[in-house]
Amino acid sequence: MNTGAPTLYGVGLGPGDPDLLTRKAIRIIKKVPVAMVPFVGAESRAARVVRAVDPEATVVGYHAPMTRDPEERDRAYSKAAETLAELLERFHEVAVCNLGDPTLYATFWHIVERIPLEDFEIELVPGIPAGLLCAARIGRPLAMESDKVLICTREPPEDLEGMDTVILYKPTRRGVERLLREGFEVYACRELGFEGERVERVNGAEFEPSYLCTIVALRP
Amino acid sequence: MNTGAPTLYGVGLGPGDPDLLTRKAIRIIKKVPVAMVPFVGAESRAARVVRAVDPEATVVGYHAPMTRDPEERDRAYSKAAETLAELLERFHEVAVCNLGDPTLYATFWHIVERIPLEDFEIELVPGIPAGLLCAARIGRPLAMESDKVLICTREPPEDLEGMDTVILYKPTRRGVERLLREGFEVYACRELGFEGERVERVNGAEFEPSYLCTIVALRP
Repeated sequence: MNTGAPTLYGVGLGPGDPDLLTRKAIRIIKKVPVAMVPFVGAESRAARVVRAVDPEATVVGYHAPMTRDPEERDRAYSKAAETLAELLERFHEVAVCNLGDPTLYATFWHIVERIPLEDFEIELVPGIPAGLLCAARIGRPLAMESDKVLICTREPPEDLEGMDTVILYKPTRRGVERLLREGFEVYACRELGFEGERVERVNGAEFEPSYLCTIVALRP
Repeated sequence: MNTGAPTLYGVGLGPGDPDLLTRKAIRIIKKVPVAMVPFVGAESRAARVVRAVDPEATVVGYHAPMTRDPEERDRAYSKAAETLAELLERFHEVAVCNLGDPTLYATFWHIVERIPLEDFEIELVPGIPAGLLCAARIGRPLAMESDKVLICTREPPEDLEGMDTVILYKPTRRGVERLLREGFEVYACRELGFEGERVERVNGAEFEPSYLCTIVALRP
């Protein structure tokens, strides 16, 4: 529905490999006058993906804090939201781009909930979640028939009965230990779609958490 | 790793909209001499997507039975596997294309497990699962922070405590009723990415199952 209001695109960039963006995501990135991407620390991997599909893109980076401190987060996201509202008013079309999918654990919503939504159209463009690329690399199905897949962050719940597969983002050591204890085959996938990508079977308690690490745990 | 062996690509076509294929999926479809796609009844929606991205594609349709009868399934998949093995030998590269993602409830594996895997290289190319497009259409996140998402088929388990979101493929009426009873906001998404696409909130017991229907249930 085009009401003439500015349009905010929430674009999923997929796991990191520019080849795993959808045709739609690429078209929108090329079309919008400006794209907003998160910076985590000194780095924006999202910016790398955006520039790989459109070297001439104008990219505005915002600070996505790696803390759970509510005040620090509020400050960062409020600042990003202010920038976004101004960019929308000035350029009429802005793409806020996140790795993965915009509906799965995306900082996108923290920003969007801080701008006056009634003034904008929002269109979400799905992206490949990292967990699916992990499964592709492992070469095994996540689910068949009546299998159940749980997606969660940090650590899975105590009770994993009935779950055939667990996808764990931002894993903690405790979370991985729980999966091993429950008898899952655990794979850690790091830097997927980026240089240095690796997939390793986690056997003992030697798991080291790292940024952009996704765990896929399968019932043997 | 290229060993000179024939390569079988398992390609995810996404929910149906050719614009939601990845660049990689499109490149592989255009490059391979032949693509295999499932027929469900008289129709192959997968074939429609393949031909939309490559009108000159050579497409071989196989019968994907809509039954749970093990004998009928075995007959159909064995026949498809025989065709696949012959195509691989003759053409050296074959893409088996499924709607959605090749690791989530894909018939791909039923065929692959029936061919001598040691003779082939397999490469899986992720696709956008329908559930993510549903969330995009509803315009709500599936998960934030420590939210838990359950993906399942037909009906969810009795105990949904701790689950914030449920994605239900091939939903039954009983499955949808359980989600409503548990207090979820239930959305039925039909024919996503195809003509006639619609997303409706399910309020009462009026839910009618249909083919290519995906349920997204959110905690209010």
